[in-house]
Amino acid sequence: MTGGARSGKSAIAERLTLELGGDPVYIATAEAGDAEMAARIALHRDRRGSNWTTREAPLHLAEALYATDGAGPRLVDCLTLWLSNLMLAGGDWQQASQSLAAAIPSQSAPVVFVTNEVGAGIVPENALARAYRDAAGLLNQSVAAVSQEVYLAVAGIPVKVK
Amino acid sequence: MTGGARSGKSAIAERLTLELGGDPVYIATAEAGDAEMAARIALHRDRRGSNWTTREAPLHLAEALYATDGAGPRLVDCLTLWLSNLMLAGGDWQQASQSLAAAIPSQSAPVVFVTNEVGAGIVPENALARAYRDAAGLLNQSVAAVSQEVYLAVAGIPVKVK
Amino acid sequence: MTGGARSGKSAIAERLTLELGGDPVYIATAEAGDAEMAARIALHRDRRGSNWTTREAPLHLAEALYATDGAGPRLVDCLTLWLSNLMLAGGDWQQASQSLAAAIPSQSAPVVFVTNEVGAGIVPENALARAYRDAAGLLNQSVAAVSQEVYLAVAGIPVKVK
Repeated sequence: MTGGARSGKSAIAERLTLELGGDPVYIATAEAGDAEMAARIALHRDRRGSNWTTREAPLHLAEALYATDGAGPRLVDCLTLWLSNLMLAGGDWQQASQSLAAAIPSQSAPVVFVTNEVGAGIVPENALARAYRDAAGLLNQSVAAVSQEVYLAVAGIPVKVK
Repeated sequence: MTGGARSGKSAIAERLTLELGGDPVYIATAEAGDAEMAARIALHRDRRGSNWTTREAPLHLAEALYATDGAGPRLVDCLTLWLSNLMLAGGDWQQASQSLAAAIPSQSAPVVFVTNEVGAGIVPENALARAYRDAAGLLNQSVAAVSQEVYLAVAGIPVKVK
Repeated sequence: MTGGARSGKSAIAERLTLELGGDPVYIATAEAGDAEMAARIALHRDRRGSNWTTREAPLHLAEALYATDGAGPRLVDCLTLWLSNLMLAGGDWQQASQSLAAAIPSQSAPVVFVTNEVGAGIVPENALARAYRDAAGLLNQSVAAVSQEVYLAVAGIPVKVK
């Protein structure tokens, strides 16, 4: 589930996850580092309601998938934030991205990923922002390649692209 | 009708509005505040030709819809500019957005809205720009939810998403 | 073939070009002006392999199409870089864009174009960046209008829009 900011990605992904049946697990890559992010996290949590189990995975996402496999469907929200956590922590995002892509096909319970489209604006002047948008595009490609379905959210509407 | 800058949204929306038949009404949210905007407005007006009635609604859009209902089809160009007018004027854009979404289903003559995709670039450093792109995404979702059809313009081509 | 940064456009376009059969010609609009661009060019060249003939056309693209017509399929990568070369050189990009659109229908061997979506982020503060994204949108529209097929790349997946 990819799309621009506020395109309805998270809400659509939550519905898709619930439709898969079983007890849903929410794998959060966000950390409430500032007030703006804390408010956004609280908004998402209130919308989901209490039937979800939440697990935080700001950095070790592949490990979190293995650790939660076997139960209900998992919703990972979101990949681009995970990428920015990895890059800020000075981690090897390419290695982490490969480990993630390798972990996906072996999961027995389904996983829904939320990610962002960040590459359809003007080329950023900032070199770090350019590196980030390149990395995000490559990460999206590698996860999409091993996913059974891929959707683009446009104005709250999921458009199936795979 | 959503899409990026210069994706052909306005031209496609004008064709769609004319195909609906009847005397078309152009509801402009733009105000010619500077030379760049004045030139863009003149370009759009020349392309439309003289069979359109024009009405300006930089702020009171729901009211303009009620006031023009019953005659021919309306084309609102565009929602993201209306949003930026509201935010610059210090208005309550969330309330205005709800009033707009509430006005749409009760219209008897059709309305075509043009809006912009502004959330698919890198996260802006500027807090106001982040607030604006969040607001634009939510506005697009709320209007799309009560619209019968939704299109994404890509390189001048309308892609039906609803 | 349009799409955001790192959406897989070039790789998909290379596959499409090879599927057309015949000896492929790569028409590069890039010039290795700095280390970042040189690295990107080398990466693309390594991926393509040695069966491609390469021709550089940073400015005279329509001429390059006429000069390579009759042999195998051509891949032009990419239009938005060509546009930025034209604008930086102070050339008449509107005239060049019209010449390109006029050249396309008369080609006997097929041409695949790669371009970028640059207009789906927040409106840039920089006037030159706004002029560029407007020009890129218009160029994409004019090439798409005379193309037989148009695709949008999303996370490495081509979505047919025409």
